[in-house]
Amino acid sequence: MESMMIYMPIAMALLGLIYMVVKKSWVMKQDAGDGKMKEISDHIYEGALAFLNAEYRLLAIFVVIVSVALAAVSFIVPTTHWLIVIAFIFGAFFSAFAGNIGMKIATKTNVRTTQAARTSLPNALKISFGGGTVMGLGVAGLAVLGLTLFFIIFFWFFMGSTWTNTMDMTIVLETLAGFSLGAESIALFARVGGGIYTKAADVGADLVGKVEAGIPEDDPRNPATIADNVGDNVGDVAGMGADLFGSYVATVLAAMVLGNYVIKDMGGMIDDAFGGIGPILLPMAIAGAGIIISVIGTMLVKIKSNDAKEAQVMGALNVGNWTSIGLVAISCFGLVTWMLPETMQMNFFGEGLQEISSMRVFYATLVGLVVGAVISSVTEYYTGLGKKPILNIVQQSSTGAGTNIIAGLATGMISTFPSVLLFAGAIWASYAFAGFYGVALAASAMMATTAMQLAIDAFGPISDNAGGIAEMSEQEPIVRERTDILDSVGNTTAATGKGFAIASAALTSLALFAAYVTFTGIDGINIFKAPVLAMLFVGGMVPVVFSALAMNAVGKAAMEMVEEVRRQFRDIPGIMEGTGKPEYDKCVAISTEASLKEMMLPGLLTIGFPLVIAFVPMIFGMDNMAIAEMLGGYMAGVTVSGVLWAIFQNNAGGAWDNAKKSFEAGVMINGEMTYKGSEAHKAAVTGDTVGDPFKDTSGPSMNILIKLTCLIGLVIAPILGGHAIEEGVALTETNETTEVIKKVYVEMEVESDDIAKAVVNITTVENGESNVDERVISGTLEEVKAKVESLKAGASSVKVKSNKADLQEEISIEIE
Amino acid sequence: MESMMIYMPIAMALLGLIYMVVKKSWVMKQDAGDGKMKEISDHIYEGALAFLNAEYRLLAIFVVIVSVALAAVSFIVPTTHWLIVIAFIFGAFFSAFAGNIGMKIATKTNVRTTQAARTSLPNALKISFGGGTVMGLGVAGLAVLGLTLFFIIFFWFFMGSTWTNTMDMTIVLETLAGFSLGAESIALFARVGGGIYTKAADVGADLVGKVEAGIPEDDPRNPATIADNVGDNVGDVAGMGADLFGSYVATVLAAMVLGNYVIKDMGGMIDDAFGGIGPILLPMAIAGAGIIISVIGTMLVKIKSNDAKEAQVMGALNVGNWTSIGLVAISCFGLVTWMLPETMQMNFFGEGLQEISSMRVFYATLVGLVVGAVISSVTEYYTGLGKKPILNIVQQSSTGAGTNIIAGLATGMISTFPSVLLFAGAIWASYAFAGFYGVALAASAMMATTAMQLAIDAFGPISDNAGGIAEMSEQEPIVRERTDILDSVGNTTAATGKGFAIASAALTSLALFAAYVTFTGIDGINIFKAPVLAMLFVGGMVPVVFSALAMNAVGKAAMEMVEEVRRQFRDIPGIMEGTGKPEYDKCVAISTEASLKEMMLPGLLTIGFPLVIAFVPMIFGMDNMAIAEMLGGYMAGVTVSGVLWAIFQNNAGGAWDNAKKSFEAGVMINGEMTYKGSEAHKAAVTGDTVGDPFKDTSGPSMNILIKLTCLIGLVIAPILGGHAIEEGVALTETNETTEVIKKVYVEMEVESDDIAKAVVNITTVENGESNVDERVISGTLEEVKAKVESLKAGASSVKVKSNKADLQEEISIEIE
Repeated sequence: MESMMIYMPIAMALLGLIYMVVKKSWVMKQDAGDGKMKEISDHIYEGALAFLNAEYRLLAIFVVIVSVALAAVSFIVPTTHWLIVIAFIFGAFFSAFAGNIGMKIATKTNVRTTQAARTSLPNALKISFGGGTVMGLGVAGLAVLGLTLFFIIFFWFFMGSTWTNTMDMTIVLETLAGFSLGAESIALFARVGGGIYTKAADVGADLVGKVEAGIPEDDPRNPATIADNVGDNVGDVAGMGADLFGSYVATVLAAMVLGNYVIKDMGGMIDDAFGGIGPILLPMAIAGAGIIISVIGTMLVKIKSNDAKEAQVMGALNVGNWTSIGLVAISCFGLVTWMLPETMQMNFFGEGLQEISSMRVFYATLVGLVVGAVISSVTEYYTGLGKKPILNIVQQSSTGAGTNIIAGLATGMISTFPSVLLFAGAIWASYAFAGFYGVALAASAMMATTAMQLAIDAFGPISDNAGGIAEMSEQEPIVRERTDILDSVGNTTAATGKGFAIASAALTSLALFAAYVTFTGIDGINIFKAPVLAMLFVGGMVPVVFSALAMNAVGKAAMEMVEEVRRQFRDIPGIMEGTGKPEYDKCVAISTEASLKEMMLPGLLTIGFPLVIAFVPMIFGMDNMAIAEMLGGYMAGVTVSGVLWAIFQNNAGGAWDNAKKSFEAGVMINGEMTYKGSEAHKAAVTGDTVGDPFKDTSGPSMNILIKLTCLIGLVIAPILGGHAIEEGVALTETNETTEVIKKVYVEMEVESDDIAKAVVNITTVENGESNVDERVISGTLEEVKAKVESLKAGASSVKVKSNKADLQEEISIEIE
Repeated sequence: MESMMIYMPIAMALLGLIYMVVKKSWVMKQDAGDGKMKEISDHIYEGALAFLNAEYRLLAIFVVIVSVALAAVSFIVPTTHWLIVIAFIFGAFFSAFAGNIGMKIATKTNVRTTQAARTSLPNALKISFGGGTVMGLGVAGLAVLGLTLFFIIFFWFFMGSTWTNTMDMTIVLETLAGFSLGAESIALFARVGGGIYTKAADVGADLVGKVEAGIPEDDPRNPATIADNVGDNVGDVAGMGADLFGSYVATVLAAMVLGNYVIKDMGGMIDDAFGGIGPILLPMAIAGAGIIISVIGTMLVKIKSNDAKEAQVMGALNVGNWTSIGLVAISCFGLVTWMLPETMQMNFFGEGLQEISSMRVFYATLVGLVVGAVISSVTEYYTGLGKKPILNIVQQSSTGAGTNIIAGLATGMISTFPSVLLFAGAIWASYAFAGFYGVALAASAMMATTAMQLAIDAFGPISDNAGGIAEMSEQEPIVRERTDILDSVGNTTAATGKGFAIASAALTSLALFAAYVTFTGIDGINIFKAPVLAMLFVGGMVPVVFSALAMNAVGKAAMEMVEEVRRQFRDIPGIMEGTGKPEYDKCVAISTEASLKEMMLPGLLTIGFPLVIAFVPMIFGMDNMAIAEMLGGYMAGVTVSGVLWAIFQNNAGGAWDNAKKSFEAGVMINGEMTYKGSEAHKAAVTGDTVGDPFKDTSGPSMNILIKLTCLIGLVIAPILGGHAIEEGVALTETNETTEVIKKVYVEMEVESDDIAKAVVNITTVENGESNVDERVISGTLEEVKAKVESLKAGASSVKVKSNKADLQEEISIEIE
């Protein structure tokens, strides 16, 4: 059984995908309603397809360009294998395919939910959540399937499917990083482009429809209304899906990289029942188990009463969610204790090797699960209806838009306090338990329930759409009431889902950051070097500028939409009377083109900066290790600042949104009940206008920015590092301005391939001061040779004395 | 002459102070106008005194508490001397005294400017700028005087006024850090408290006066109008003065610390004509020269024509400013080449010792001067009337407050791009030229013109006040027109002055950060250690939360003011008809109390966090070096994030302000001239409401937050480091979980006190692997002994063989 574990995640992924197909066909079999409903739904479906097709065209170009660049790199740089190009293309394809499944099912489920809501709330929930489940399992199943498949292929290709050494495994994982890069590139388009799309359509529809023409939301006379509904799917379904797909893959990959590092710390080889790669398989196994657990979790989500309210629906979701988190904890315990050696050695920077028991790794996974759960509550507190911060913003709305804005900004800013302390605590705790491997596994455990999280997330916009269809097709009020219950719960889960997405992005980036350091072989990242500190500053600035560009992009795209809607109201006769038919597709086309055009600049910023930092100094002949450290500083800057701005913008936006919504049921301000239409409500609407791009465009984009930055760093790492996996002695980093002479003398005794020993004597003379360093190494022949090789870097002469003659010749260097 | 250089800065400071006294008496001799003007001016003067007195009371308590804490620390920790308490008290006193001079002269100059403006614009400029000059020279003169004086005292006390070794000098400078801490603490009260004061009074006066009662700004019937005018002085004069006083002192101190480090890198002793402390004296000498140069610069500021406009006034200021920057460059060249050895050795982390010529240090100072000049232009571009970003915000105002706010936020965010690239470039360049000593000297050169910068800065609020007095005392329109010209120029200089203050805070913090690392003796700050990374996150969050607290504080303080003004309008009969007299002093008292009360929480956050990070882990027995690195990570996080948020908030606030002001002269929106009172103008006013606390409270407070954080770190450093000044071998940082045995064997040959040599053999056994490290040290006996001492740290046995018998006993350790 143990030796088959490498295939377990694939099996689980396939099971999940089979369940998805079954669920999908069940949803599709549901009644799609009558004429008008169907017509509207078809418009939305076609609009979504139009966006997807436009996106895919752009994507194809992008994938070709990056593939060519990667191929060029792989030909120039000996440490990068051309297979990374294949991995990249498939990563992009898998993510795009998952997005496609999600968008299609979401836009098919919405009308079926409306139809079900005509008779039964439990059925409406079953269908809308069923659509979400299809989406969730599609994303998670394809992510695990793709990653595991390519791991097995590369493991076979580079290592013949048996353990050789950590360096070969490093090459396997470096090549696998291409898959992750491909997936995250799609996320850039889906999340950033989608974020711009959804807000441009929303603002365009509102500004001309609601404000200028005075017709209600989701009115079929508004030419932008279909684009608006498409936007909900583009942003919240496809965008969120691609975001989590990317996080999922990157987290598991980073944990595998750090698992390999654990093996290195344990002497380059471990003896377990899993072919010696237990620590590398573990994160995949957790991901595989997570899929089955998510299936179980989704099955638990159901309500019985047709008179259920928000609380019951929320309760049903919570049952499913908490059950799956609990099951993940149990399965982590089982997998960790089964798959890992009882004790491991891990190297802690500046503290040396430590003995780590497998139980401590399990504790690290618990940290991840706790973070995932707590961050949702924190987000809920700062953005939830009826909570103190929201009531405060409502109160501040009474003195005008200015004070409303200040209160909203302050709420978003203060919300960074508990969130960052939580993250910092999680980093610390999971690291203290099991080093950076612990940090990566904490992230993996948290991400194990991705399918469940996405099901909960995607159900929101589906219900929102269902409500829109009910409105546009003029259903009985009870239908809209039922969909509104689902929609209202969906708003809450959207906020908590954003918290989960940030947490996952933050932990993923940290894990990638750690993997980056191991790939480059640098001696940590020392911000007491000014160039590194300078890059920390630059990195900190990029999320701020990115956010501004994204916000401006929404403004520009919305303006184009406004012009188009105005034109249609002007040019199409009888449109306001309902006799003329608005050209929905024109609005969809404008939103699509504008959003994809406007995402270019922020996208370029994201991809361009790390490349400039890595390659411009290289052209000027800077030392690779120094560049690697600078790039690391940049990555840290982007991550820290990006996480802060993500929390700030998401929570401020969410808070403004719900402060505005509070007026719908009426709020008490200075002892007076205040409703929609009041001055205070107008102030709150202004706040929401500011908050919209915050929470739907620039805020969520931060996730992609920080992950993509760290992934690009990871892909560049081998170019900089050349597989240095010596534990940070960094002897190559010798002084280049003063003369340094390094001589190495090796005495090597080989008993067998498994038992070898070497005494290495390193003499360095620098500024007339001589320094002798003696090391005693023992282990397998392979290991000893690898260590000697790394120790002799930069030496002008290497002499070897050994009982095996061929070794003497192999290792010695004699330079005049 | 050379040996007297230590007294040169004091002489310059005294000359500057004498000139200040002369200028002050000249200003005071000017005509203070007639009855009503004098009455109003007296109200402002008394209000300012009331604020100062309340502040001093609170300050006295604060100083006593901190002094007791510092005294306790100095008794417990052997490496901290009790004289730090004296230095702290005097630092606080000098800064408070400088603020006092500034406030008094500013509130005396305003009415004299009004009076002069009745007849002559050139005279009005001469008087208002004269007041600014008094302020500037008071701050700079006292800063240099205090710092130099205490350096001379401590140099005499600890070293007998002659060079001994770098460790003794470290103690001198660590004690001197108390002076800087004292100064920066005052800045916390003046800048944060002042920032809250000025906005609370402003908002309170506007909200009830302008909006509710419909009376114009600066109307004497408004009870809050005096508080509003006092606020201008409290925030822009006293706050800015204390801010720059703190930057000035901290920068010079940090440069001195790094100068000592240069001497260490050169073997612990240099032979120059300045008693061997040339690199330490240099920053003080530059500061001294800067004072005289500023005096010259201020003399050049004058206009001739009574019909001059803004451009001529701005031109006059520019002549003075650019001349002084040019003169500083020349004097830097002279001082650097004269006072420094022609070539120095500096240790670059990871690159080892490098030969640095004194010319390269000069280039580093040029970098600083360029940054000071360029950052002002960047600020001017993003916030100046008629510039593209402002026109864009104006344009966006036409679609409502929401789009105005988004445009303003985006402008502030994008403005971080050139600013951060400028800072990053400056860090990189000045470091590449001359290491962190170069970074600190770049900051010192930039700060040399502090007196001139402050004169230009302080002249703005003086002119603003003069305009207010003209309005309140109902002067001829021509008087207000003349003061408006000065005020308008003052608004521009206020924005550029903020840029200068941020740049100074950023470079100062970096220099302090570098000084911190040398004080603790850690091996750099490695963010690849999770606890350090966690603290980087926490540090990044603090400026965000601090800003939110400061903004909320303004809101709360303003509400108290609003209540009071409403009460007076209600309760005082005839107040609106001008027959009842408003109780100005009550409003002043409320603003004073509220601002000082509300600054407690952000102040506590600033001081509390570094203390918690340092001492809580200490209680739990964490290794001091690990704590030092964590605290360093925290400092870096606060600095990077604080600089970003300072730029973002200042520039967004400035941009909104000028977007609103654009409507006064009328702006072209969609082909139509639009003026005050339009819907677009109302949207712009909302933007300005949000921008006010940004640019006057939370934005400028960031400077204090980052400097104070780094200073607290610097004061804690010796407690953590225990004077470790070994160049980063950090052998003390041994593994505590696996057993490590360290044995040291020393062979020492002493020829004379000046010539000694030692061969140190260090054997460490860790996890069964043995490692032998041999070092050959030569130098003076003192130096060799120091190095041996540091190498033997943590050893279980030390054996010494020497031709000097007493050394054997002194150094050996034998532990069972």
